[in-house]
Amino acid sequence: MESSAATLALTQLPCVYPAKPINHRVYPFLPSKRRISQPTHLHCHKMFVPGFGEASPEAKAAKNLHNFFTYIAVKIVSAQLESYNPEAYEELMEFLGRHSLNDGDKFCAGMMRESSRHKSLALRIMEVRSAYCKQDFEWDNLKRVAIKMVNESNTRLMRDYISETSPVETEK
Amino acid sequence: MESSAATLALTQLPCVYPAKPINHRVYPFLPSKRRISQPTHLHCHKMFVPGFGEASPEAKAAKNLHNFFTYIAVKIVSAQLESYNPEAYEELMEFLGRHSLNDGDKFCAGMMRESSRHKSLALRIMEVRSAYCKQDFEWDNLKRVAIKMVNESNTRLMRDYISETSPVETEK
Repeated sequence: MESSAATLALTQLPCVYPAKPINHRVYPFLPSKRRISQPTHLHCHKMFVPGFGEASPEAKAAKNLHNFFTYIAVKIVSAQLESYNPEAYEELMEFLGRHSLNDGDKFCAGMMRESSRHKSLALRIMEVRSAYCKQDFEWDNLKRVAIKMVNESNTRLMRDYISETSPVETEK
Repeated sequence: MESSAATLALTQLPCVYPAKPINHRVYPFLPSKRRISQPTHLHCHKMFVPGFGEASPEAKAAKNLHNFFTYIAVKIVSAQLESYNPEAYEELMEFLGRHSLNDGDKFCAGMMRESSRHKSLALRIMEVRSAYCKQDFEWDNLKRVAIKMVNESNTRLMRDYISETSPVETEK
């Protein structure tokens, strides 16, 4: 995940900021193409996220999940092989030791070209990641957990800060 | 994202593997606790993913998304500040240059303790990441794009391999 925001360029004010008394109609620098049919109520449109070019935050997150699913598939297949095919398990472990799983597709492509046995393993990993993301991965649960995590983290960060700066408040 | 599967231990055969003629009833090593009320039809339960302990793949993915949302919030806030508060923008950029965004909560915690102005920035970033994940991020789109990505990647990987190993087949 990128950690630099140095290339930020475009700007847009959010509708979800009650703390700042922003009125869109008095900000002439807002991009006009994005203001078509702009009503006056809050939550009228989404916050603009700069720096993604033609892609989207969803596509970037999906790409990360894509690699994650490959990682999961490797774990699933490894565990299966460990029991009933120790030889293939050893081959997979040996290949894992030499190749990074950070790029799932690159990993699979390299494995397909290693040997015919490795090719079978790669096809199996690809099949498992497909089945996993369609059938097993709990997408609703992901959303629920992620939103809960943001809420709880925000609360915890503020609570920790308050307890550090005004110790008396920790009794509450 | 972890790239090692060396700690894999538990095993379970998937129900989604038609390629392997696996019959659960003849595999005595399957963990009995997981086979309660095991019907004979396919897709009867999920593939077991080892190595997550008390957590789950969904929780791990949510943690990654959590940091991603902080990164997105920093981009959004930076773009806003760049236009109407260059001084705060410079402060944010300077702080970004000194602190990693890989751990979003650590980033926010550090920023809250930097100065009172930085604290306001941190609170704003926290507010934006909360609003973003609840209102703006397109969860359905994430699922759609991720599943499409796995399908297309699998097809592409197999097509590339075939075109490399049997050039005649590329005409199809």
